Amino acid sequence: MAEQAVTVAVSTVIFGLRDVDGSPALHLPLVRRVREPHLGRWALPGGPLRPEESLREAAREGLAATTGLRPRHLEQLYTFGAVDRGGADRVVSIVYWALVRTDEAERTLADPNVSWFPAERLPALAFDHDEIVGWAVKRLKAKLEYTRISHALLPEEFSLGQLREVHEAILGRRLDPANFRRRVEATGTVTRTGALQSGVRHRPPALYRSTARQELLT
Amino acid sequence: MAEQAVTVAVSTVIFGLRDVDGSPALHLPLVRRVREPHLGRWALPGGPLRPEESLREAAREGLAATTGLRPRHLEQLYTFGAVDRGGADRVVSIVYWALVRTDEAERTLADPNVSWFPAERLPALAFDHDEIVGWAVKRLKAKLEYTRISHALLPEEFSLGQLREVHEAILGRRLDPANFRRRVEATGTVTRTGALQSGVRHRPPALYRSTARQELLT
Repeated sequence: MAEQAVTVAVSTVIFGLRDVDGSPALHLPLVRRVREPHLGRWALPGGPLRPEESLREAAREGLAATTGLRPRHLEQLYTFGAVDRGGADRVVSIVYWALVRTDEAERTLADPNVSWFPAERLPALAFDHDEIVGWAVKRLKAKLEYTRISHALLPEEFSLGQLREVHEAILGRRLDPANFRRRVEATGTVTRTGALQSGVRHRPPALYRSTARQELLT
Repeated sequence: MAEQAVTVAVSTVIFGLRDVDGSPALHLPLVRRVREPHLGRWALPGGPLRPEESLREAAREGLAATTGLRPRHLEQLYTFGAVDRGGADRVVSIVYWALVRTDEAERTLADPNVSWFPAERLPALAFDHDEIVGWAVKRLKAKLEYTRISHALLPEEFSLGQLREVHEAILGRRLDPANFRRRVEATGTVTRTGALQSGVRHRPPALYRSTARQELLT
């Protein structure tokens, strides 16, 4: 094949829930660029694809090296390759995404150049990363409708109130508790564990778990 | 970024229905390779990405140049990039897919090195294209459950019997006509046009159309 000025990079979008004023809010970790172009801007974790690593390995390693996060499920989201992407060379970016559970998302990141940001209030990102995050959020919202995707953001066992808060955090609007409960119970995607939520003194809510193993994101 | 021996290619998987013994069967067009590697083997239409064309343009042009087909909807399916893909250079292939309506799928292709094959009985393909087609078929089956994807394979107006045959062709098994009708009517994805199927003398079936514009495949 002919020589071509196309470089391949792999980036990752990680979503997790972090507490804001007592409610969970959708967040993602970003990395501050320490070199040109876009020096000082925040960007998605990632980097160029090395010939000896698979796409998934590149996503996983790039993520672990910058953020220390190791999500269990990492799925390919989309490949971005507009002609004007990148600088001198055209860059084709294969983007992976993942969800991490609350305990991982609440962990403080040691590196000052890595930080969690609320998805609703991001700074202007490097390159076209705003567009990539926007696409990922849109996909996440759409998947709430017909998959168990929201379970991946919660602990193994959760109350229906916690599940509703996740949906509210992703959709950015309040949901009616009774309607939400009916709708979720009708889908058969969750089942009661028999336990009650601890730490709640007055009428503690029942705990549920996912009825199937975690589905693929895509 | 460091120099890397990674080449980018774009390929397309096109599905259409062609008649086999009076029933529609899922087919796809393949191109016979006229050079090494894999000389003489059948492969998906595609080729290397040129720096001046977008990913979608590359998919569209590669497809049009080899098969003459110009599907209206062409969506990115997945990017394949295993370390051992390709020959001397590692090849990352961005794969698009599309569905074409029956009239396009029935058209004879002029080039003897391009031919439609039934998805269920493919020859051994070049490179890892068997795996790519397998992935696309699996995705298509999964999407039958919750999208209007099957409508894209039919004429603008269709009977529920025709729609059922499409599902049967993709799933590879018979479906109960009464159950299928109930299930489709319950989803609200189709609506009666008021017309009856022409060319059927005894009790011609009612014609339907999709209630929404064609959805994205992915």
